[in-house]
Amino acid sequence: MISEKMIGLTQNNSVIRAMFEEGNRLAALHGRENVFDFSLGNPNFPAPQAVKKAIIDIVNEEDPVALHGYMSNIGFADVRQAIADSLNKKFSTNFDMANIIMSVGAAGGLNVVFKTLLNPGDEVIAISPYFVEYGNYVGNFDGKLVVVPANSEDFQPDPEAIGKAISAKTKAVLVNSPNNPTGVIYSEDTIKRIAKVLEEKSQEFGSPIYLVSDEPYRELAYDGIDVPYLTKYYKNTIVCYSWSKSLSLPGERIGYIVIPQEVDDYQLIFDAAGIATRILGFVNAPALIQKVVARCLDEMTDITSYDDNRKLLFSLLTECGFEPVFPQGAFYMWVKTPGSDQDFAEAAKKHNILLVPGTSFACAGYVRIAYCVAKSTIENSKEGFVKLASDLGITP
Amino acid sequence: MISEKMIGLTQNNSVIRAMFEEGNRLAALHGRENVFDFSLGNPNFPAPQAVKKAIIDIVNEEDPVALHGYMSNIGFADVRQAIADSLNKKFSTNFDMANIIMSVGAAGGLNVVFKTLLNPGDEVIAISPYFVEYGNYVGNFDGKLVVVPANSEDFQPDPEAIGKAISAKTKAVLVNSPNNPTGVIYSEDTIKRIAKVLEEKSQEFGSPIYLVSDEPYRELAYDGIDVPYLTKYYKNTIVCYSWSKSLSLPGERIGYIVIPQEVDDYQLIFDAAGIATRILGFVNAPALIQKVVARCLDEMTDITSYDDNRKLLFSLLTECGFEPVFPQGAFYMWVKTPGSDQDFAEAAKKHNILLVPGTSFACAGYVRIAYCVAKSTIENSKEGFVKLASDLGITP
Repeated sequence: MISEKMIGLTQNNSVIRAMFEEGNRLAALHGRENVFDFSLGNPNFPAPQAVKKAIIDIVNEEDPVALHGYMSNIGFADVRQAIADSLNKKFSTNFDMANIIMSVGAAGGLNVVFKTLLNPGDEVIAISPYFVEYGNYVGNFDGKLVVVPANSEDFQPDPEAIGKAISAKTKAVLVNSPNNPTGVIYSEDTIKRIAKVLEEKSQEFGSPIYLVSDEPYRELAYDGIDVPYLTKYYKNTIVCYSWSKSLSLPGERIGYIVIPQEVDDYQLIFDAAGIATRILGFVNAPALIQKVVARCLDEMTDITSYDDNRKLLFSLLTECGFEPVFPQGAFYMWVKTPGSDQDFAEAAKKHNILLVPGTSFACAGYVRIAYCVAKSTIENSKEGFVKLASDLGITP
Repeated sequence: MISEKMIGLTQNNSVIRAMFEEGNRLAALHGRENVFDFSLGNPNFPAPQAVKKAIIDIVNEEDPVALHGYMSNIGFADVRQAIADSLNKKFSTNFDMANIIMSVGAAGGLNVVFKTLLNPGDEVIAISPYFVEYGNYVGNFDGKLVVVPANSEDFQPDPEAIGKAISAKTKAVLVNSPNNPTGVIYSEDTIKRIAKVLEEKSQEFGSPIYLVSDEPYRELAYDGIDVPYLTKYYKNTIVCYSWSKSLSLPGERIGYIVIPQEVDDYQLIFDAAGIATRILGFVNAPALIQKVVARCLDEMTDITSYDDNRKLLFSLLTECGFEPVFPQGAFYMWVKTPGSDQDFAEAAKKHNILLVPGTSFACAGYVRIAYCVAKSTIENSKEGFVKLASDLGITP
């Protein structure tokens, strides 16, 4: 009796979310401390103290009618201006509030952007491995996700392969750096080459191809590595940002969309994205938390703890004989599996280790291990990983 | 370059939202106190003190990782159970957490429900006058809104006319009581007759017709009038609730969906609605505010002030010679216009009075006046209404 599209989805629900529920089930059976749940990108480190202070200060200081009331669908003007100023300071860009739309996280932002851009049948290119929800976001508007594999050496996107996949139907290329699930950060060289391809192809087909950048992990970069700001390399770039990871606020659903002035059809796209925010049922990003993030623009979750986890997990897995990619950013480790990634995940579950098979990211032969967990979870998982290696005949 | 659907929408943007922006423009010109903005359902009365207290207590008491983190897409289990318990106490229903999905306001909830139910071309019946966004919400999923006018005597829905409009394509009937824009509360007799029609037609076409109840105004009922709880009259009822008005939190985007156990295909619909919440980009309703409303289930905004406004505005308009419908609920007054409602709205604007023409609710010949404003706004608008009556040749 329900929508046919949804019937397919109920039969093939998110493996990641199913893992999350499975983790809760195993924790109830064996105790939370005996389950090593590396399945979900749910930050284990708390929001900075400044978030709590901002919440309390704001409800004490501001008029509740204005604070909790409707504002323009695109968000509070002062919040949008503060974000533009902060971006300009950090990245030497030239934005103002007319380039910023507040969104219900990056997931909300991406849906607004695709609602704005896509006609049925339009194509969006994603680089595999990719966050599996991209297919749903594009599918919501009857677009078609076209998958281009990353370079299997270093998991950088392959600009030439992207160029070959572009057709007259291509409306956007969707990128994500630091990357979920590989932890790779796109190099400046990769970005320049993608920009060049998109310029050439936009000209060839006589219609702009938008570069849509999904940026929930922007600040999670290790060893001082630079994450280039894409609007500076390609004019038709639209950014979807989220504070889910940088301020450990994933449940609060707060982010923004950047639509630079130089984007083709800027005014039309900006206006349409504001309307899309409204009619998709978001109406506006949650009010109080908009004000909170505006007061915390220079705050950041404890990235050194993620960095410690990264090194610890990498050593542990390497010592066991596994082959992880050393991540430059985000909080995921991408690990080659000797056989099928789904068998690997099932075998891991026997030792109460939960991780997500690469198939869920359209890239078989790998698993994703989310290390946004307590250090002790990694330490205590060692015995399980040793046994798993043994079960699979892996030797250091 | 943008989506064709969106091009139409940018050319014909929400009149209500345009009024909101116009109100800000006029306020900048003439001073806020000289503009009588009756255009938007943005509550003028603050959230109860208990909301502020709950926010501060929760951030002081709860672990920030759990508080601001991801939870199941359908919402925090304890919050959902508390809501079910509260509904059972108020309406003698028999819900538990398995019937409740937290949503990003009622607008988010309606989008989730239509995403869940609709195939392209499926029909949803709305009763005119109706909240204009319904057309967009149904259109998001390529459904078709079929409009059935309410009884023009008392603006109750006409069950016979609904029955005649039902076809093999009808998936749902969308109702809203207390009603925006008329202020009418559906009588128990009306509801029983609608239920009977839907039962007959479901049987005739061999497929359930869902009754979807949009309930942001449930608690805004005056003179002790009862607002019947629809799940008790028709088993295939799905409720979309919002705290936007009852707690004056419209900007916070918090509500829930009720899917009773007795609904046909309950499990499939519940599961699909959870997935729809995720893939539409909501992911989950905002976390902190979920916890806040759970602590404020017995709280309520100051309805006596709305009631005072209702009586004051009704007297004022009647004295001027206008013909308002005396509202039983919500905070809107529905007023007959002598000529075109759009001309009426333009004429009102000359006296800095902003109101919304009935055409925006698919019902010409009326205007909607939102009285969720300061009492002084109504008092001070009197001179303008007197002049407006005179301009239009209306006499008491």
